[in-house]
Amino acid sequence: PGKFKAKVVEFTEKTKKIGQDDPRRIAHSAKVGLALTLVSFFYYFRPLYDGFGQAGMWAILTVVVVFEYTVGGTLLKCFNRGFATLLAGALGIGAEYLATLCGEKGEPVLLGILVFILATTSTFMRFFPSIKRRYDYGVLIFILTFSLVAVSGFRVNQIIQLAHQRLSTILIGAATCIVISIFICPVWAGQDLHNLASANIEKLANFLQVFGDEGSVVAPKDVKSFLHGYKTVLNAKATEESLANFACWEPCHGRFKFHHPWKQYLKIGVLVRECCCHIEALSGYRNSKPQVPSEFSIKIHQLCVKISLESGKSLNDLAAAIKNMVHPCATETHIKNSIAAANELKSILESSSSLAKPDLQEIMPALVVASILIDIIKCIEKISES
Amino acid sequence: PGKFKAKVVEFTEKTKKIGQDDPRRIAHSAKVGLALTLVSFFYYFRPLYDGFGQAGMWAILTVVVVFEYTVGGTLLKCFNRGFATLLAGALGIGAEYLATLCGEKGEPVLLGILVFILATTSTFMRFFPSIKRRYDYGVLIFILTFSLVAVSGFRVNQIIQLAHQRLSTILIGAATCIVISIFICPVWAGQDLHNLASANIEKLANFLQVFGDEGSVVAPKDVKSFLHGYKTVLNAKATEESLANFACWEPCHGRFKFHHPWKQYLKIGVLVRECCCHIEALSGYRNSKPQVPSEFSIKIHQLCVKISLESGKSLNDLAAAIKNMVHPCATETHIKNSIAAANELKSILESSSSLAKPDLQEIMPALVVASILIDIIKCIEKISES
Repeated sequence: PGKFKAKVVEFTEKTKKIGQDDPRRIAHSAKVGLALTLVSFFYYFRPLYDGFGQAGMWAILTVVVVFEYTVGGTLLKCFNRGFATLLAGALGIGAEYLATLCGEKGEPVLLGILVFILATTSTFMRFFPSIKRRYDYGVLIFILTFSLVAVSGFRVNQIIQLAHQRLSTILIGAATCIVISIFICPVWAGQDLHNLASANIEKLANFLQVFGDEGSVVAPKDVKSFLHGYKTVLNAKATEESLANFACWEPCHGRFKFHHPWKQYLKIGVLVRECCCHIEALSGYRNSKPQVPSEFSIKIHQLCVKISLESGKSLNDLAAAIKNMVHPCATETHIKNSIAAANELKSILESSSSLAKPDLQEIMPALVVASILIDIIKCIEKISES
Repeated sequence: PGKFKAKVVEFTEKTKKIGQDDPRRIAHSAKVGLALTLVSFFYYFRPLYDGFGQAGMWAILTVVVVFEYTVGGTLLKCFNRGFATLLAGALGIGAEYLATLCGEKGEPVLLGILVFILATTSTFMRFFPSIKRRYDYGVLIFILTFSLVAVSGFRVNQIIQLAHQRLSTILIGAATCIVISIFICPVWAGQDLHNLASANIEKLANFLQVFGDEGSVVAPKDVKSFLHGYKTVLNAKATEESLANFACWEPCHGRFKFHHPWKQYLKIGVLVRECCCHIEALSGYRNSKPQVPSEFSIKIHQLCVKISLESGKSLNDLAAAIKNMVHPCATETHIKNSIAAANELKSILESSSSLAKPDLQEIMPALVVASILIDIIKCIEKISES
């Protein structure tokens, strides 16, 4: 029993943490519950069509399947569902009509062949990366609806009546989802993407600043979390892509227009991850202090610290600029500073003839980081202008 | 029309490429078509239950939704679907029973509250990472079935009869999927994961070997693809995780036992990606030849080439060892060689007092790579023993 109690405690703490990490998750759960209850009630009190509420079932199914965490996701799925159902329904009716022309015996054979062909090609279509990304769900619904309609064995006029019912229920379900997801505590994929981009840059900036100025600015406890923050950046690719995908579907909200250049965020993401890779390589040298501090090595060390701090500041500035959607002005001076420091370092190395110190390792990645920063700047400028 | 023709040509070429990249995709598409046609025929010829084939619809729905590319994925989804349907059905019947006790007026209110509570908690559960990874689909089905059963408004004995029909049709659909996916050209997630792990290591090995021995071994055309191969390694995380997830569910096949340590592959994946990061940092220095080749810099260059080649060989060996599931024997000698070369390099640097050459940049990451290699070896040994 003690073990069980420990598990329960652990579970509640986990739950609390997930809720605190993002309170919108609780709101989202409640929203799904609300949408489902509303649709259920609607059909419970008004069994619009005959019997069991065949139709009501479809509305519930739509709500459960379509409701996504972000507004863009919900809209994309609704569109997919609606369009695929219409197209597949039309094709299904056509197939049914063709099949009746073939007479009693030919009908099932022809239908079987058609179902096979359509299911095979549609499934193959799902392997196309561009279709997979956006219309995966739509293709699934297409296969489903087509086979259902084709196999149902109804006459054409019966099918049209059924299709009318089916579509209206799906519409009710989808409309409920859209209204609730937009008007009650909306979670905008675009906003999330925006925040993610600036948060990721901020993490890298934190690392560089802590790396440069070990232990003097922040408490030792924070150092570790700062230093490991960059690791999550590397794995943000999938999240970024799906968010950008959803964001295209969202209407204008907050400070974002409808044609906000969401793809720019992906480009930034790629650059940030590249930068992150260099930081990963850099992180191995964190504790490599020169054993015998000569004048030369101290000078190099100071310059390294300066480069690291300055590039950290410039990244921080960039993050703030993205967050507030303004043109980054202070960034460029910081970058200039760090480039100047890097150049100084180079000239010192070239002019001196002393021993190669382990410090040297720290410099070069920092240089690379600085050069990547310049690339990022170019990219950012495009965005802040838009 | 010319434009349209160009698009058609482009499309067919794309299709060809996708088919050629992995011919199993075509087989998979045909398998889905076959399963769907079989199930459709079954219900077309034997309208087992009353009317429209309400039941047949569920079998088709099951096939469309459950059939995944890999065997493990299909099994996992079938399990999810079956288990969630049973649990939700039982709870739904319980809710219905409770509601009838409350009388005419209390019934819809109680049902609404119950649906709301269950939908909210279940949706929240989906945010737990561990549940999201494995049982996301199951929770979805759970919400769906529970609301359908609770809202249907049937008496309890009617529901049990309906549940019997529903379950039998789902079973038929699921069984068709499982049989077809296992016995006709099976795609094993475990095998894929295994190949992916060795292919990724091989890509890194190729890079290191080309990096070390620029332009003399392979044709210039291949160089580029070899050098960029490692970039895909960085993005393989999501694929690896889902494959490992599916692989747990597969019965023994080929050279894999049921309790194959799939998690080891994920650990290797993490190490490989870390190594890949260092390679990314390394790749910036590809064309950095010393302008004034002194005796010292030439010596360093030779050692760098040696380190790079030897670590490349050891990685290649590792990849082969994983592929054939044998203990990597030649690997250790290669690693010893590269470590020896790295030590030599260190001592040269320490003893000499000449200028720091740009070559130095190339060495340090190589050292890091070598040290990570040793970590990987440790991990591999565990696996090859299992």
